[in-house]
Amino acid sequence: MPERVVTACVLIIGNEILSGRTQDTNLNHIAMVLGEAGVRVKEARVIPDDEDEIVTALNHAREKYDYVLTTGGIGPTHDDITADCVANAFGVPIIVSEEIAEVIRRRPAPPPVMESRMRMARIPEGASLIDNPTGGPQGFQIENVYVMAGIPMVMQGMLSTIQFDGGAVVRSRSVTAHVGESQIAAGLGDIQSRYPDIDLGSYPFFRDGVYGTSLVMRGTNEADLEEMLDAVKALIVENGETPRDIVAE
Amino acid sequence: MPERVVTACVLIIGNEILSGRTQDTNLNHIAMVLGEAGVRVKEARVIPDDEDEIVTALNHAREKYDYVLTTGGIGPTHDDITADCVANAFGVPIIVSEEIAEVIRRRPAPPPVMESRMRMARIPEGASLIDNPTGGPQGFQIENVYVMAGIPMVMQGMLSTIQFDGGAVVRSRSVTAHVGESQIAAGLGDIQSRYPDIDLGSYPFFRDGVYGTSLVMRGTNEADLEEMLDAVKALIVENGETPRDIVAE
Repeated sequence: MPERVVTACVLIIGNEILSGRTQDTNLNHIAMVLGEAGVRVKEARVIPDDEDEIVTALNHAREKYDYVLTTGGIGPTHDDITADCVANAFGVPIIVSEEIAEVIRRRPAPPPVMESRMRMARIPEGASLIDNPTGGPQGFQIENVYVMAGIPMVMQGMLSTIQFDGGAVVRSRSVTAHVGESQIAAGLGDIQSRYPDIDLGSYPFFRDGVYGTSLVMRGTNEADLEEMLDAVKALIVENGETPRDIVAE
Repeated sequence: MPERVVTACVLIIGNEILSGRTQDTNLNHIAMVLGEAGVRVKEARVIPDDEDEIVTALNHAREKYDYVLTTGGIGPTHDDITADCVANAFGVPIIVSEEIAEVIRRRPAPPPVMESRMRMARIPEGASLIDNPTGGPQGFQIENVYVMAGIPMVMQGMLSTIQFDGGAVVRSRSVTAHVGESQIAAGLGDIQSRYPDIDLGSYPFFRDGVYGTSLVMRGTNEADLEEMLDAVKALIVENGETPRDIVAE
């Protein structure tokens, strides 16, 4: 039986990432969490706070991938336009979620402030909510699109509450050696061709004054992974070096 | 005279970013360097080591933006397919660059290793080279597409040698305050509407046990930026708080 492959696209929404002001860390976190759930991130896009760009990216991604996750643009200010863009992409009106409004009302504020905060209760008609364990307004989901906050702490909380219907989980094996990539490139190519279903990545590094290469194998078949790892280790030994465990980089 | 706007798209090529194994930092660095050169990054995509995906993204980006910068996939191993994809996207053959081959030959190696390393001399016909100050094989440029290494140190070296024909440089002003976003959201919206050419971003944070908001103004007109900054500071004071300089986040 062929294994079930479940895919995702991540849309990072925000001018601050594209201007270089902010280093995005959300993609990395999402990729790791989805990987464990058997969902493979196949593409990510960083797009500006621009309605046309967001709608175009949403419609591309929701058509092509099983899951679409967005981060950013669901706060209370004028540059928070993600909910409107999602409604636009799905061709549905924006409604006010009484459930989110209740959460917002729990924290008292003067009327004008409350009015701004109520922007966060606006969701596309037909959406359901994504819990927010940090206690603030929820995110929302419509069909295969999951809309989360951009603040990493809040995004991580929301993500932790989503149940993904994942497929085969991709596992990995890794090993490093103090060899140059070129030294083992031909051998790696041979090994890769013997295990076409496993992705063999080669990543050179320079650390503590020493050049080396990390080899990472990713696939769903544990037996093949083990065989491939043995083959890569043997290749390293053939080249007069010692296979080493990966340390944090 | 309308100011000249010069745009760029960044393509981050590599399975290791999408799997969550590696935290990308290249986009952030490129965005900052291009910004200083008057080139605005309007989109970034993270794509897998897959020929169709890379070619599609290249053709989209080179059509839509003034500059396209890629990172990753130009090493000596089987998973390094960026040069082939760029040649494919432009419909030109791959040739061997004698200039890169010379750099490669400077470091002696046994014939099979040298053969693998020579993969890095393969470039699309018509491309010119991007210097590599770290001493390794060069990157290359064809029309508006700039192809660089994925290793941050090497990419940064290559990027530093490229001359961009930039337009008006986007400058920024920033201020933070211990106010919630909602408290000043209406006022920010008013200010934004008075300066439509300046992008006013609002970024909530939680630091050292205190909630606050960073306000970032980005635009090319320094006089407008100063006026807008004064207006934002006045808004903060009206709300009973003190405008503070941005500290590193």
